[in-house]
Amino acid sequence: MARYVQKYGGTSVGSIERIQAVAERVARFKAAGHQVVVVVSAMSGETNRLVELAAAIQDDPAERELDVLLASGEQVSVALTCMALLQRGIQARSYLAHQVAIRTNGQHTRSRIEKIDTERLQRDLEAGCVPVVAGFQGVDADGDVTTLGRGGSDTTAVAVAVAMGADECQIYTDVDGVYTTDPRVVPSARRLDRITFEEMLEMASLGSKVLHPRSVEFAGKYGVPLRVLSSFEDSGDGTLITTEESHAMEQPIISGIAFARDEAKITIQGAPDVPGVASKMLGPVSAMGIEVDMIVQNVGADGQTDFTFTVKRGDYADAMKIVLGVVEDMGAGDVTGDNRIVKVSAVGVGMRSHAGVATKMFDALARENINIQMISTSEIKISVVLDEKYLELAVRAIHEAFELSGEAREEA
Amino acid sequence: MARYVQKYGGTSVGSIERIQAVAERVARFKAAGHQVVVVVSAMSGETNRLVELAAAIQDDPAERELDVLLASGEQVSVALTCMALLQRGIQARSYLAHQVAIRTNGQHTRSRIEKIDTERLQRDLEAGCVPVVAGFQGVDADGDVTTLGRGGSDTTAVAVAVAMGADECQIYTDVDGVYTTDPRVVPSARRLDRITFEEMLEMASLGSKVLHPRSVEFAGKYGVPLRVLSSFEDSGDGTLITTEESHAMEQPIISGIAFARDEAKITIQGAPDVPGVASKMLGPVSAMGIEVDMIVQNVGADGQTDFTFTVKRGDYADAMKIVLGVVEDMGAGDVTGDNRIVKVSAVGVGMRSHAGVATKMFDALARENINIQMISTSEIKISVVLDEKYLELAVRAIHEAFELSGEAREEA
Repeated sequence: MARYVQKYGGTSVGSIERIQAVAERVARFKAAGHQVVVVVSAMSGETNRLVELAAAIQDDPAERELDVLLASGEQVSVALTCMALLQRGIQARSYLAHQVAIRTNGQHTRSRIEKIDTERLQRDLEAGCVPVVAGFQGVDADGDVTTLGRGGSDTTAVAVAVAMGADECQIYTDVDGVYTTDPRVVPSARRLDRITFEEMLEMASLGSKVLHPRSVEFAGKYGVPLRVLSSFEDSGDGTLITTEESHAMEQPIISGIAFARDEAKITIQGAPDVPGVASKMLGPVSAMGIEVDMIVQNVGADGQTDFTFTVKRGDYADAMKIVLGVVEDMGAGDVTGDNRIVKVSAVGVGMRSHAGVATKMFDALARENINIQMISTSEIKISVVLDEKYLELAVRAIHEAFELSGEAREEA
Repeated sequence: MARYVQKYGGTSVGSIERIQAVAERVARFKAAGHQVVVVVSAMSGETNRLVELAAAIQDDPAERELDVLLASGEQVSVALTCMALLQRGIQARSYLAHQVAIRTNGQHTRSRIEKIDTERLQRDLEAGCVPVVAGFQGVDADGDVTTLGRGGSDTTAVAVAVAMGADECQIYTDVDGVYTTDPRVVPSARRLDRITFEEMLEMASLGSKVLHPRSVEFAGKYGVPLRVLSSFEDSGDGTLITTEESHAMEQPIISGIAFARDEAKITIQGAPDVPGVASKMLGPVSAMGIEVDMIVQNVGADGQTDFTFTVKRGDYADAMKIVLGVVEDMGAGDVTGDNRIVKVSAVGVGMRSHAGVATKMFDALARENINIQMISTSEIKISVVLDEKYLELAVRAIHEAFELSGEAREEA
């Protein structure tokens, strides 16, 4: 017997039929003797519908009330999911945030979970009942509704798994696991059986949309094994995200190739090479709430510096305006930019102990005549910035260079 | 300055535009220096949508989960109503049942309110803020969501008005008050300026759909003045329901003519006139959950009794089956029935002190050659049962006999 927390996202509870399928799966786990806690998101489309209603009424909807509004979506899902379980003779009981006291720090639209009162959930599991917990929502010290922001339901699931000492937190979604790269770009991409939290975090941050980095970080911190599975097909064990590296004899050096489209870069050339010049550039950009990703700096021979950073493409115009202002104030430097770039990264804990990973990656790009515009590295990741037209070619070349392809992927 | 509780029903918050209109009205009350607590129902159509989802998933939806599901409707309304107020610069704050602790006895789908924690509402009013409370929902001692059943939001409004010591509880709906009778039957029907709780209770029980009897009873018990008003037009003071009788010099004897369509009657003739025969008939009918309305019994000269009772037309077949079984067991009595009858009632506290009300009513019917099948009276009401084909004719004749018509009704 194992104790599982199973989280079902919006598409997995997006219709009557999908909710029935969730109940079927939970019933199978129960029949196999396991304990299951279910966490659900709002039915797909519902959150957008509610956001549109709010936008039609208030120019800039009040965050406190937006949280109350959006939390109604998960309320509908938990009730319907319980009904589907009860219909199959499975004891089930829904819980809203205030009932299991998913206590948050009270920040509206992006609050953090502080603690969960597990008493009722424990009692239910011991009585053979399936608790169905509303994802995404919490309550503050006053009992006011707060929501957890992007990736909120995944975070709820991980928090419940941590609080309940679950053996595994299973995230059911519309893909059947984490792949070596996006199968739409490389059809021979292979589903990974397991991956470490660190690798998953890099993959997620780099655009692999399967899990929000926040829930991966949370699960990693408390060492709760996470598993990504498809709620649309029953075959396969998905991808296990765990602290342990693969025990395979020939451990792969690289786990996957991640990429991010819609990037942009801004370069300042010939700025004075004095302390504080980087923060003078980036301070005002961050203050505007613009996320800066890669930062690369080279010192030239003549006491001047070249300085490049990347932002999301949508923030390019704003960031450029700020930088031009700063450079004008400093009275030095040429500013150039490019909003047609992408980032491609090779990720793997294996590269810690293997030299030559960078070389292999750069060679693969060189063979395809792809020019590298920027390079940035971490302990388990090498990222390069390229012209956007090379994205698919580069991903395929690197994927092949590290021999990541598996057998042909089964059709979902 | 007065303190008002204003309740807006489903059609009054049924669209973005209607919610904006609610906010406009509240803004005017605030501008006039009043304190306002708002109670809202789910947007019209929403409850049906949710009930259909539930029915598609579980044959007989679990009451605990149905309550969670349906309560989401009011959650959406309170958030949107607050946004509309905030958009107008009015401070507003939504409250779900668990936040103001609308504590109920815990019975799902038809629970009763036991107490309300008014601390936050009081604090809001003193700070010039408009609390917007979700109608229809409550929480039990465990914090589980329960709903109040039919007329639930009206009941919430009255309970909040009682707990907050409001000067008046205003029920905004799609009609502009309580009429002497249904204006669709008698176009010259007049809107009543005021009516007593007792009269309103009789009117409501007898088919006047404006208010659920439960909320009228509740308001009457605690002496909170209730006012029925239109949320669709701004003219008029609606109808005030209060403990005080009208102070007009010539107090009308009859306040209104109520009627109920879709009734049916069952008569047992020649049953033995012994104690317990009535309960032998009605006991099994009540046990089936069938509501018995009028009961009339006459003792004959030969030690036999004639016994008639009425039920809703939809319950006629079930009730008839039960009665036939009982009569067969007793071995005596003939059973006849009629499911094409209606009930027409004259209601008024004035009749307590006026003889001849019954006579005037029966004369009016006789003049139209309408045969009275049954008669039943209470202190403030006379009801007659008639063939359904006479309904409109009878209502008009009685309405005219008591001179209830006013000037031509303004178009809504």
